[in-house]
Parts: sequence; structure tokens; C-alpha cells
Amino acid sequence: MSETAIQDLYQEDFANCYGCGRNNSHGLQLKSYWQGEECVCHFTPGPHYTGGVPGFLYGGMIASLIDCHGAATAAAAKARQSGEPVARFVTVSLTVDYLKPTPLGVELSIRGQATEIKGRKVTVKLELLAGETLCATGRVITVQLSASP
Amino acid sequence: MSETAIQDLYQEDFANCYGCGRNNSHGLQLKSYWQGEECVCHFTPGPHYTGGVPGFLYGGMIASLIDCHGAATAAAAKARQSGEPVARFVTVSLTVDYLKPTPLGVELSIRGQATEIKGRKVTVKLELLAGETLCATGRVITVQLSASP
Repeated sequence: MSETAIQDLYQEDFANCYGCGRNNSHGLQLKSYWQGEECVCHFTPGPHYTGGVPGFLYGGMIASLIDCHGAATAAAAKARQSGEPVARFVTVSLTVDYLKPTPLGVELSIRGQATEIKGRKVTVKLELLAGETLCATGRVITVQLSASP
Repeated sequence: MSETAIQDLYQEDFANCYGCGRNNSHGLQLKSYWQGEECVCHFTPGPHYTGGVPGFLYGGMIASLIDCHGAATAAAAKARQSGEPVARFVTVSLTVDYLKPTPLGVELSIRGQATEIKGRKVTVKLELLAGETLCATGRVITVQLSASP
């Protein structure tokens, strides 16, 4: 597994995201690591992130995890292909399929794989698991931001 | 416009969502109202919900707004069609297309319209606007939960 989180390689100006920015002290500070041929993120949401029914995670958080980790997976996959430093990718299209209720109080794993790298556009497919249970799948289409001056 | 928010009609056991549950004191407490032939929600995210670049909303929050308001739109549309009390709908599939950066510090409008009502399944299309600017579009496929005992 990579020792440095992908998000810790984002350029300073692009590291403010509520979901995954190291500079956002109010945020979730998600961390994604390259492992083998995929990118992985582990996260245990707090109990207040419940959905309508207590004990299960709300859908917006699941979408957030897939969005932020998808962008990190895209950044890592592109850097591995190009040999250049990690750039910042942003999501232009997000799809989430909610397969089963996602339990709270359990560490979640989100796994991403780049399925297409085409210039500045990277597509990623994702799975969100609670233990061995596949709770949601996702797809993000991302584009690379230009570096700020 | 309806005087009571759709979320305030959810059954007590289903009103805990971080995004839109009236019983979640830590949450966003989104409120959706029926207006004409659509359902509308207004929300001004706090400044810490920034994306990677300061001044713009993070994608996960946009997905959350579309998810929760989409489920409320489905509940309202179904109740209007059936003449029965508002039931609780949950999202099984969510798609968000991010068209333009969504500014922070501006009241956002999210507008939903049911495009198909088929038994317990309702599909909703959505738009998220900052002022007159269309920043994102979405689609949710939702299903009706059975009432708890």
C-alpha cells in the first residue's frame, strides 16, 4: 500500500474539500491509498450520519465517499500512467447504486479502479463494503484541473 | 406552496436522516415544499462545506441535496397521486451531473419533478440552481418503504 495518502499530495490550493481536504478542519479528511491495482479508503462514519432509519448510513454520505474517493483514484491512476506528480481531478458525473442498507458503527471500505484514462478524463468504478457485504456501487467520470499558478 | 414540509410528514421512525430528518439535531434538516407541479427546497450551505477550491460547494453535498430532496419529491408526488398520507421513499439509484461550480454563500434552489410513478417505485428528475444559474442536474430512482408497525 502507498505510504502517503493521495489527498496529501494534492496541490495546496486544491486541498480544502469538506470530504477529503487535509486543510479542512471541519471536514471528513478522507484518505485514499494505492494498493495493488486499485485504490482503497477506510472510513467509519459517526453515529449522527444516520439515514431515515437509525443504525444505517444516510445516502448522501455514501455518495460523498464515492465522489471523493473516486476523484482520488482517478488522480492516482493518472499519475501512475503518466509518471507525473498527482494532479487534482474533479467529478463531472456521479452514479451510485444503493444495493443494501449500509450499517453504522462499522468500518467501511471503498475500493476504486480506473476503467478508462483518456487524456484529462478518467472514469472510475467503485464498490463500498461493510465487512464482506457489498452495500453500494458507483461510477464517477472525472476531469483533471489545471494546476493553479 | 404547501405549508408543511414533506419531511415533517414522515413517520417518526423514518425521520432521523442527517440530510433531512427533523429528529436529527446534528443534521442539515432540509425542507421540501410542493409548489405547482414540482417540489422545491432552498438551502444555504455553511462555508466549511467547500470543495477542493475555496468558495465552491463540495460535490458530496450536492449529491446529498439531490438525494434527500429527490426522496421527498417522490413521497409528495406519490401521495398526491394516491390520495394517501405521505410515505417514506428511499433512493436506490442516484445520478448527478455537475455542470458548473456551485458557489458558496448563495441560497441554492433544488427543484424536483416526478417523471414516473409505478407502484412503489418513483423516478424523479432534479435541478440545482444558484440564483438563475443551473449548476447540477440529477435523477433518483426511489422505492417506498413499508410503514413500520
